[in-house]
Amino acid sequence: MIMKRMTLILSCLLISRLTLAADVITLKLAETWGPDYPIFGDATKNFAALAAELSGGRLNIQIDSADVHQQPLGVFDLVKSGDYDMGHSASYYWTDKVPNTQYFSTMPFGMIASEQYSWFYFDDGMALMDEVYAPHNLYSFPGGNTGQQMGGWFKQEIRTPDDLDGLRMRIPGFAGEIMAELGVQPVNLPSGELYQALINREIDALEWVGPSLDLAMGFPNAAEYYYTGWHEPATELQFLINREVFNGLPTDLQEILKVAMRLSAYDMWVQSQHESAKNWATMLEQNPNIKVRQFSDEIMKQLREANRRLLAQKAEQDPLAARIIASQQAYLEKARAWIDISERAYTGNMDARGNRSQ
Amino acid sequence: MIMKRMTLILSCLLISRLTLAADVITLKLAETWGPDYPIFGDATKNFAALAAELSGGRLNIQIDSADVHQQPLGVFDLVKSGDYDMGHSASYYWTDKVPNTQYFSTMPFGMIASEQYSWFYFDDGMALMDEVYAPHNLYSFPGGNTGQQMGGWFKQEIRTPDDLDGLRMRIPGFAGEIMAELGVQPVNLPSGELYQALINREIDALEWVGPSLDLAMGFPNAAEYYYTGWHEPATELQFLINREVFNGLPTDLQEILKVAMRLSAYDMWVQSQHESAKNWATMLEQNPNIKVRQFSDEIMKQLREANRRLLAQKAEQDPLAARIIASQQAYLEKARAWIDISERAYTGNMDARGNRSQ
Repeated sequence: MIMKRMTLILSCLLISRLTLAADVITLKLAETWGPDYPIFGDATKNFAALAAELSGGRLNIQIDSADVHQQPLGVFDLVKSGDYDMGHSASYYWTDKVPNTQYFSTMPFGMIASEQYSWFYFDDGMALMDEVYAPHNLYSFPGGNTGQQMGGWFKQEIRTPDDLDGLRMRIPGFAGEIMAELGVQPVNLPSGELYQALINREIDALEWVGPSLDLAMGFPNAAEYYYTGWHEPATELQFLINREVFNGLPTDLQEILKVAMRLSAYDMWVQSQHESAKNWATMLEQNPNIKVRQFSDEIMKQLREANRRLLAQKAEQDPLAARIIASQQAYLEKARAWIDISERAYTGNMDARGNRSQ
Repeated sequence: MIMKRMTLILSCLLISRLTLAADVITLKLAETWGPDYPIFGDATKNFAALAAELSGGRLNIQIDSADVHQQPLGVFDLVKSGDYDMGHSASYYWTDKVPNTQYFSTMPFGMIASEQYSWFYFDDGMALMDEVYAPHNLYSFPGGNTGQQMGGWFKQEIRTPDDLDGLRMRIPGFAGEIMAELGVQPVNLPSGELYQALINREIDALEWVGPSLDLAMGFPNAAEYYYTGWHEPATELQFLINREVFNGLPTDLQEILKVAMRLSAYDMWVQSQHESAKNWATMLEQNPNIKVRQFSDEIMKQLREANRRLLAQKAEQDPLAARIIASQQAYLEKARAWIDISERAYTGNMDARGNRSQ
C-alpha cells in the first residue's frame, strides 16, 4: 500500500474527489493466469475497474499476471506473506499445502454452480471457508465460476472400466486420485505442451475446462471423443486478500472491495455460460465429427464409489474436513431435490427446438 | 501510521458529511409487492442498502410498497410519469399496455436463468429491452430471478389433453393464452383468495411461483398434484428508472445504481434457489403425499405447438417483436446445446446421493 499524505488542512479544505485522489490506495494483486487470459483475466480486470469506479478512484488495483510474479501456483504464499495484497486463483491449487482448501472450488459429483453459490452465500459455505483460511492470514471470496467442466478429450471411446486401465490422462488433483483408483495413470504437463502431447499420443486423454477455453487450446483437432463432466461440476475461482491489509482499510473501502469481488464473480459465471455456448457452436461447425459421450453406468458407479471412499478417508483424518464434507453433502441433497423437479425436469423434457428428446 | 491516517480520513469524512448532507439525493421507488414480501422485497431492500453504502450516503432510496402507492400493477405509469423515480416489478405485467414488454421476464419453453442472463448481458437482451422501454421515458434493468417456476397445483391428475378441457385454472398472461388453446378456462383472482378458491374447488388448479413462495400460500394443503414447469422457466423481475431522472444524475451515481441493481438481482436469483431448496424439503416433510408430475408428451406437444402459433402471430404483427423473438430463439438454441451436454447431462446422470437415476 502506498499512500501520499497531505496535510490535514489541505485535505479538508478540498472536499471533492480531487482531494481524495491524493489518498489513492494501491493494492497489488497476483493472478495465477497469464496476461490477458480469457474469462479468468476478464474477472480480475472487471474487479479492478469496479473497485476504482465505486471508490471514485481511491482504490487502485494493480494486477500482476503470472509472467510478472512467475509463481502461478504460489499465489497463496505471495498473499499470505504480504508480498502481494490480493490474489486471484483457485482454492484447490493449495491442497498439498492446506488440504481443506480443496473443498471451495468444486467437488466431484458435487454441487452445480447455482447450488454452490447458494451454499456459499445463504448456507455455511463462507463461514467454513473462513475457518480454513483465517489461520493463514487470508480472506477468501468466490472469484468467478467456469460452470460445468467437461470430462475431457479422449483419443478412443471408453466403453468399460477396462478401457480406463493404464490410460495416460492429464487430470490433476482429487479427480486424478479418483481416476487412479480405476487404473488411470494421471499425468501432469505444462498447459503449453498438452495439445502436442495429445497429438503425439504421449497422453491418451486430457481434461481442461470446457468449450469456453478448450477451443483456443486446439483440443477438438487432437481428439474425437468429448466426455461429459462428473469431476468439476462448478469450478469456482477465488479472490484472496491478506487479512491485515483488508482489516487496515477504511470500512467503506472494505465494502467496496466485497461488492466488486461478488459482482465480478457472478459476471464471470454468466460470461462462462455465454462463451461455452458460443464456442460449442463453433467447435461443432469446425469439427462436425466430435463425438459427445457419457461414461457408462458401470464406470460412473465405480467413480462414485472411489469418490465416496476417498472422502470418507479425508473426513476420518480431520474433523474440519468432516464438517465441510457433511455440510456440502447435506446442502447438495436438499438443493438437488429442487433442481430435479425444476431445471432438470425442464431441460430433460425438451431440446431448444422444443422437441421431446427422451 | 495507520492510526494517524485513519484519523485524517475520519476528520475529512466528518467534515465532508456535514457539507454534503444537503446533497443527499432521494429516489422514490414504487414496488409491486406488499410490505416485507419475501425474496422480491429483499431484492429492493438489498438494492437500497447497496446504493446507500456505495455512495457514502449520497443516495437514499425510499421504498414504497403497494400498501402505500396502491397501484401494484401501475408501477410502469408511476415511473413513466415521474410520480416515482424508480420501480421494482416484472416486465410482463405491462403486456396489455406495451405488448413487447412481455419478452423480458420469461417465455414459455424459453431460456433458463443462466441462459437468459447471458442473453441480457453478453448478447442482445439489454439493447432490445432498451428499444422497447426508451419510447416510454424508462430504463429497464434485470431485477432478480425466481428461478424455474412450477407448472402449478392441480386437484386431479392430468393425463391427457382431454383432462385440461374446461379446467378452471388461475394462470394469467401469455401462458394463460396458451392453456386456453388447449381448452383451459384461465381465471384471475386476487392472490389473497387463491387458497380458499382451490380448497372450495371454485378453481381446479393454479400456478403461483414454486416452493420458494408457494409454501407460505398454503397450496400444498389445498391440492395434491404438483406439476413441473414449462411456462416460466426463469422469471426475471425488473428495475425501472425514469429516464430523465437517471440522465440527470452525476455519472458516478448512475454507475453506483447500475452496480447495485445488477448485484441485488444476481443475489435474488441465488436466494431463490436457496429458498426453493429449503421450502421444497419442508413441503415434503409436512405433506409427504405431494405427487410431482410432468405433463405427458402429448400435452407438452400441444402446448409447444400453441406457443409457436401464438409467437408467430406476434412476430407477424410487429417487426420489433419479430426481432426479439428471433434473437431469443437463436440464443436459446446455442445456449441449450451447451446446457444439454453440461448441466443437463450431469444432473440427469445421477441424483444427489450419487445414484444412477435413469
